[in-house]
Amino acid sequence: MPHFDAEDLIATAHALADAARAATLAHFRAAALGVENKAAAGFDPVTLADREAEAAMRAVLAARRPDDAILGEELDHVAGRSGLTWVIDPIDGTRGFMCGTPTWGVLIAVSDETGPILGVIDQPYIGERFVGGLGLAEFAGPAGTRPLAARAPRPLAEASLFTTFPEVGTPEEGRAFAALAQRARLTRYGMDCYAYALVALGQVDLVVEAGLNSYDIQAPIAVIEAAGGVVTDWQGRPAHGGGRVIAAANRAVHAEALEVLAGVEG
Amino acid sequence: MPHFDAEDLIATAHALADAARAATLAHFRAAALGVENKAAAGFDPVTLADREAEAAMRAVLAARRPDDAILGEELDHVAGRSGLTWVIDPIDGTRGFMCGTPTWGVLIAVSDETGPILGVIDQPYIGERFVGGLGLAEFAGPAGTRPLAARAPRPLAEASLFTTFPEVGTPEEGRAFAALAQRARLTRYGMDCYAYALVALGQVDLVVEAGLNSYDIQAPIAVIEAAGGVVTDWQGRPAHGGGRVIAAANRAVHAEALEVLAGVEG
Repeated sequence: MPHFDAEDLIATAHALADAARAATLAHFRAAALGVENKAAAGFDPVTLADREAEAAMRAVLAARRPDDAILGEELDHVAGRSGLTWVIDPIDGTRGFMCGTPTWGVLIAVSDETGPILGVIDQPYIGERFVGGLGLAEFAGPAGTRPLAARAPRPLAEASLFTTFPEVGTPEEGRAFAALAQRARLTRYGMDCYAYALVALGQVDLVVEAGLNSYDIQAPIAVIEAAGGVVTDWQGRPAHGGGRVIAAANRAVHAEALEVLAGVEG
Repeated sequence: MPHFDAEDLIATAHALADAARAATLAHFRAAALGVENKAAAGFDPVTLADREAEAAMRAVLAARRPDDAILGEELDHVAGRSGLTWVIDPIDGTRGFMCGTPTWGVLIAVSDETGPILGVIDQPYIGERFVGGLGLAEFAGPAGTRPLAARAPRPLAEASLFTTFPEVGTPEEGRAFAALAQRARLTRYGMDCYAYALVALGQVDLVVEAGLNSYDIQAPIAVIEAAGGVVTDWQGRPAHGGGRVIAAANRAVHAEALEVLAGVEG
């Protein structure tokens, strides 16, 4: 296990979030948002805001934590020698960002070889920050600061379920999700990382997604687990590598969801 | 055409939005949100916040505009004698409200016999207000106030399209929507009335929904038309009675969308 100063990691995570907040808000809802298509086929938008926010975060890390590794969505992997890796996504929900919705976020995690030990989900426009790990489970928003706490168990039939894209993933993954949605009380779409923040805030019972990258899920894992929730893949294994994810408010609803989803081949 | 004092209507609309803002925020993300099910089958949530916000708005109207009629989502129709009707939805997006998302809104419109002449879309948690009609087209948010202006024409193939529920309406309506979605660049879900606000703000090209009530759409019509956009039903007729709606940033993209959707039987 790497040696680290928890206070410095927490302060650095806030500094990264502050830097990304400034860089993203400079472009959010601006008239001439530079959007290019990084996919050969289909539509995978990268905005100037993504690149500038990631560069701003990397500049903070170069100054404060030069020995840590960096894994970011937009730029090259940086090797480290501390045993810690910063896993960052400058804008999770670029499509929502491009459309002016307030549900994208900046994701920041610090991980050791076992997975994330600290995570931040930041929503710059509303001014909300969700921090979990290293003893913290804290929400700061326009109305002040309060502890994060995922909600108590309720039956799946009374649970609310979120995912970003209705098709979820492959056709088989989509069918598994549909089976789960049919058993939940309420299914909602389109929130990107904001749905995970709502689990940590005690507002939502389940988020289920597929096809994630590690930088999409490491910060949510740390934040939700600090709030008392559970995040795994669809077979109940660690999810910090990405792929298929269940984020649940508690063990009971996690177990109920897992039972529906676990039949899908890994 | 009824006689009216535009300044007083605008001031009253703001007073209603202020009253609803206080009433809804008292319950938003509160631990013990009282949710009851008003549908005999299925799930149609009404919260205490809905009822209290509508009551607060009606109290303002009783004091300031006793001669106007009132059509609200939760409480009985009030007849008037001025020729004006206040069409109000205390929380558009109750499901989102219950889950803590910031994309529900308070909808307020004033209409005469031709449709809405003034509309307000208010998002209390973020502190955003979109006002259109009677010479106004204005957005006030955390970063200040600016004019509303829907975006300039771009081809449907480059347009962003929103709807709240992926199934949209009936199976036939869902298929028509899917045909449109396939021709747009980007389709997003789950935003409730916030998507209409984003059309007026110049961020989104199209919102297409079905099965709406008049109180769901009258405020968006006034706000979007004031911003230069176009709102009709799927046959290009007035939409203020509800039903199937296309809200478009401009005539060009409206015409392209109409061509895809108009084949659905009215």
